[in-house]
Amino acid sequence: MSKNGYPTNDPELRSWIESANNPAGDFPIQNLPMGVFSKTGSEDPPRVCVAIGDQALDLSECWSAGLFAGTPVESENVFETSALNEFLAMGHSAWSSVRQRVSTLLRHDTPTLRDDAELRATALNPIADITLHMPVRIGDYTDFYASIHHATNVGSMFRPDNPLLPNYKRLPVGYHGRASSVIVSGEPVRRPHGQLRPDESAEPVFGPSRLLDYEFEMGFFTGPGNEIGERISMDEAMSRIFGMVIVNDWSARDVQKWEYQPLGPFNAKNFATSISPWVVSLDALSPFMEAPKPRGPEDPPVLDYLKPVGESAIAIRLETLIQSKQMRERGMDPMILSRGDFRDMYWTIDQMLTHHTSTGCNMRPGDMLASGTVSGAAEDSRGCMLELTWRGSRPIRLPTGEERKFLEDGDVVVMRAYCERDGAARIGFGECRGEIVPAK
Amino acid sequence: MSKNGYPTNDPELRSWIESANNPAGDFPIQNLPMGVFSKTGSEDPPRVCVAIGDQALDLSECWSAGLFAGTPVESENVFETSALNEFLAMGHSAWSSVRQRVSTLLRHDTPTLRDDAELRATALNPIADITLHMPVRIGDYTDFYASIHHATNVGSMFRPDNPLLPNYKRLPVGYHGRASSVIVSGEPVRRPHGQLRPDESAEPVFGPSRLLDYEFEMGFFTGPGNEIGERISMDEAMSRIFGMVIVNDWSARDVQKWEYQPLGPFNAKNFATSISPWVVSLDALSPFMEAPKPRGPEDPPVLDYLKPVGESAIAIRLETLIQSKQMRERGMDPMILSRGDFRDMYWTIDQMLTHHTSTGCNMRPGDMLASGTVSGAAEDSRGCMLELTWRGSRPIRLPTGEERKFLEDGDVVVMRAYCERDGAARIGFGECRGEIVPAK
Repeated sequence: MSKNGYPTNDPELRSWIESANNPAGDFPIQNLPMGVFSKTGSEDPPRVCVAIGDQALDLSECWSAGLFAGTPVESENVFETSALNEFLAMGHSAWSSVRQRVSTLLRHDTPTLRDDAELRATALNPIADITLHMPVRIGDYTDFYASIHHATNVGSMFRPDNPLLPNYKRLPVGYHGRASSVIVSGEPVRRPHGQLRPDESAEPVFGPSRLLDYEFEMGFFTGPGNEIGERISMDEAMSRIFGMVIVNDWSARDVQKWEYQPLGPFNAKNFATSISPWVVSLDALSPFMEAPKPRGPEDPPVLDYLKPVGESAIAIRLETLIQSKQMRERGMDPMILSRGDFRDMYWTIDQMLTHHTSTGCNMRPGDMLASGTVSGAAEDSRGCMLELTWRGSRPIRLPTGEERKFLEDGDVVVMRAYCERDGAARIGFGECRGEIVPAK
Repeated sequence: MSKNGYPTNDPELRSWIESANNPAGDFPIQNLPMGVFSKTGSEDPPRVCVAIGDQALDLSECWSAGLFAGTPVESENVFETSALNEFLAMGHSAWSSVRQRVSTLLRHDTPTLRDDAELRATALNPIADITLHMPVRIGDYTDFYASIHHATNVGSMFRPDNPLLPNYKRLPVGYHGRASSVIVSGEPVRRPHGQLRPDESAEPVFGPSRLLDYEFEMGFFTGPGNEIGERISMDEAMSRIFGMVIVNDWSARDVQKWEYQPLGPFNAKNFATSISPWVVSLDALSPFMEAPKPRGPEDPPVLDYLKPVGESAIAIRLETLIQSKQMRERGMDPMILSRGDFRDMYWTIDQMLTHHTSTGCNMRPGDMLASGTVSGAAEDSRGCMLELTWRGSRPIRLPTGEERKFLEDGDVVVMRAYCERDGAARIGFGECRGEIVPAK
């Protein structure tokens, strides 16, 4: 166990599932992200699974075979269900027990499942043969704005004299998002209509957004929450978070620009938000956690209720890629647009959760909080097209010769995230993918 | 049936439940609002009921007695449940059938229930003896800003030169709210902590909000929604709305002022939102609907997708009252703070729903949309203390001699709403009540 009480990441540990032992893979035995799946084409109701190499382990089948005896889930099959919420409600010690049990089952020297051909046949499914669903029934979704590079870049476009507002370094600025339209990777994203004012000297019009964008964010799911009127402190926050996913906060910039004053982004964001299907636990991420960077001399001190208490900055590497329709037709791979690092955020996930509940706002198991666009200091680490093309003034050239200021119909945006360092197995998130389909 | 296809409000129709025939009552046979209740002190699970006079009619018992035979709910008891969501999902023709059936059961000349003492004993409960719960499991909660008087007043405090932003008359400005902390009337509201900057020349601090306020709004619940990527048009919008409640959007003005730029209100609003427990159907409200007032010559035209198509302005009268702890101790009744009219809103509920879904944002049965503070042109029709006391500069004197700039601990805020006009029975909402309890 690490000092956080999390199972360690022992890079030497191997699984009897050979595909999990690929050092470049996303899903080694040290990861064990959870998802919700059904067999493609099957009418069976969805169930909870764990990714291991190129396989999905059906935890409901494992439960039925008695493999969770002696763990906190023993008395009820919380995996025979279409969302992780019940399991999330059980809290950190249950999460860790289940993780430990699954890890034991899958390690190279545990024969229980390895040598039981019949059980293997029902419990293991090639990921290529399954459909992954929304892993969580999201109660509320909140979006933050925690990258100071993103906030400064966007602010300098809209308020050149005053890019960063005075509250920015004092609290993690956030807003409530739309939960109903959070969708899982792979679902298409329809170009939204909206009210726009492309010509500021003319009347606004209603029509398809012309400035469609993505935003690369990381999201996290809460487990046991707090009663209304109670708070979650920095000391408690990390243990209340189950795990993380990639979030693509699709944004209609022209809708946003016209609507957002004075109450914030609304229709510009609520048409779709995509998430990756595998939830990577904080337990799996713990070897990549470190203390937040000390604030610089130009930064104000952090108020006590948000003071860092441990290792909650997480070194997650991010990549965004694009593939136009023409690229697909010509057999070209997606092209990298940017690479970022989640460590560059000004605010950490425990600060977001603590600030959010500081009013007594209640969290429920399965609420999702997202970080806001992850942008770094470097130009090629900017997490959205608005920043990368600087509002369309520096178009991106695709390998086909096409240019992009914003997204076009048929464009596929692919986001990937992973943790890597010497002495630890790679922990990957898989991908979050979405194709823009034309407005109706 | 009225021209909308709604049952008419026949003021002559009487119920065999005598308390329903009081012309000053909220719940005559013409109203029939729905709620979710349990008998106070009982361990029985909550069920759906209808208010009639001073009684609550248990629809689950009625269903079990076969009283819904021949209606769309015949095959499944959607009332033996703790929320209206299933019933909301059934749509307008089911709502109208059930309303018609309940109306028939309760009219003076229908003996079925009237003359069945045994069934009456199980199906009718005095409202005084029941506990009312949250009527709906709210998926997403959205808050608008649809009173031009409120927007102008608040805007002129914060931006004296530019009170009303250019988008205001073009689209119903709104923002996503927090669903988890929507609570039912009667639940206490704990004064929130938050980050504040009371002295703008000094550092921000963290502590209990000092400028706690209420906002009188009206909310409405959606029934069958739209798939993601689809839209709800003005022609369809009214039929997708089941009914309305009173909403108190409690607000911490000091938190709001410091946090709200650039992404809008967040922690200032997410600690609690109270709603009245009885959902009054649009069917019951239809006699009080009228065409929206034509826009004035100074107003820009409405874009086509938001053009009014019928009678969707609703003449609902609103009252806010306050009762301090001292007033209660001295046996004084709550004091009226303001009286408003929902007809004064610049945007109507069908415009809110249509605009919200215009991007393809999906609505689910039980999503709640609220209007924003209902303020009229007159000073005594302002729907929050921020406006009534003009940011605390004109304190309100209570009958005890106490003064209020904002809410103090122990204050109870009571909101009432009703529709009244000649030739129609009064349709009331009951009340939405909440007491401020001290910060922890």
